[in-house]
Amino acid sequence: MKLYDVVGTDKNLCFSPNVWKARLALNIKELKFETIPLRFDEIAPVIGPMIPKGKAATVPVLVDGDNVIHDSYEIVQYLEESYPATQRILFGSRAQDAFFNTWFALSFQRPMYQLTALDQLELLDEDQKEYIRRTRKEMIGMSLEELANYHPEAARESAQRSLEILAEFLSSFDYLAGDHPGWPDIVTAAHFTWVLRLNKATFQEIVLDDASPSIQNWWHNMQRYVY
Amino acid sequence: MKLYDVVGTDKNLCFSPNVWKARLALNIKELKFETIPLRFDEIAPVIGPMIPKGKAATVPVLVDGDNVIHDSYEIVQYLEESYPATQRILFGSRAQDAFFNTWFALSFQRPMYQLTALDQLELLDEDQKEYIRRTRKEMIGMSLEELANYHPEAARESAQRSLEILAEFLSSFDYLAGDHPGWPDIVTAAHFTWVLRLNKATFQEIVLDDASPSIQNWWHNMQRYVY
Repeated sequence: MKLYDVVGTDKNLCFSPNVWKARLALNIKELKFETIPLRFDEIAPVIGPMIPKGKAATVPVLVDGDNVIHDSYEIVQYLEESYPATQRILFGSRAQDAFFNTWFALSFQRPMYQLTALDQLELLDEDQKEYIRRTRKEMIGMSLEELANYHPEAARESAQRSLEILAEFLSSFDYLAGDHPGWPDIVTAAHFTWVLRLNKATFQEIVLDDASPSIQNWWHNMQRYVY
Repeated sequence: MKLYDVVGTDKNLCFSPNVWKARLALNIKELKFETIPLRFDEIAPVIGPMIPKGKAATVPVLVDGDNVIHDSYEIVQYLEESYPATQRILFGSRAQDAFFNTWFALSFQRPMYQLTALDQLELLDEDQKEYIRRTRKEMIGMSLEELANYHPEAARESAQRSLEILAEFLSSFDYLAGDHPGWPDIVTAAHFTWVLRLNKATFQEIVLDDASPSIQNWWHNMQRYVY
């Protein structure tokens, strides 16, 4: 299997939380794969022709024989159906997995993106920095500097409240999916990993320092899949 | 089937959001039941002998023939297993249902309890007011007046952020459980119903006025089960 990833200056650094989701799923299932690293400006020309017209050219894309699977949740579903003898990772309904995504994206991912907006530039080649600055300004409607300075305290509070909810839940369950790591664990560990790669100090200060023992224990257990 | 409920001065007013969960589940499944109304101070003497020693005497309790089921999620599971020919209401895993509970309790229920803390007194007999004031002060560590005045703006913001997440999700799905109403719809509609009964103005102002069309449409669809 081949997994298309996006990287920065370091070709071994998986740059996208969405690709981390696919990597974590493959690793939990102990499936072997080869990574195809792309720079940001290579995604559209390489991925575009591989996927149906009209869909946005994004990573991850998984190629398994003749099958081309696009989007991290689709990849997880494909792996679950195609490799039934491996560790299960989908335990709930699609709607509830989607609810976790929505909650996580608005409550944790969005504020953390703001708090690490400028850090991502440090990991990119000069010309890629310009690409990210320009495309992100088009998407967000403000520069990354303006985003980083837009009520950072509110962003920090939102992230911390999300961690309180995770901590409360993990005081009763080993994993966010229950007894085994599943989709909500994959989503959360993917973003934790991404923030850690972007800025160790921010991760330590916002995510781990205030984290309850239940989150720290969970994060320790998830480390075996982060590679 | 008999459902033990808690009421205020109005014997027909289901007072507890947890009992509303059981009522909504029974109504979605179109199962007939009789309500046994209890005052707050009747719960311990009536429910205590019905449930295992050491468990807190709370409503709802469902009695179906020889079966006594305590706790709203247990009731929903019991109904789903015992009446398989009725409309399904559990579509996800137990862990995912529990995650929704945790999120909802901390993000919406807790702040809304604070914002309606004093309203509940208006619906109670004089001696029951004293009972609620005393027991809630023991539980919370402050009077209901102190709770109502404890950063109400932060409570309001938390509730509104929760509604944003529900709105975003319901822009892609008909119900919080997916195609049909399920556990997360039951939890949310139970609390909406409770807030509406406690204070129509607060419900209108905080829950419905800012709500997206997707929430308003969902709430409209859930009305058929609220009785």
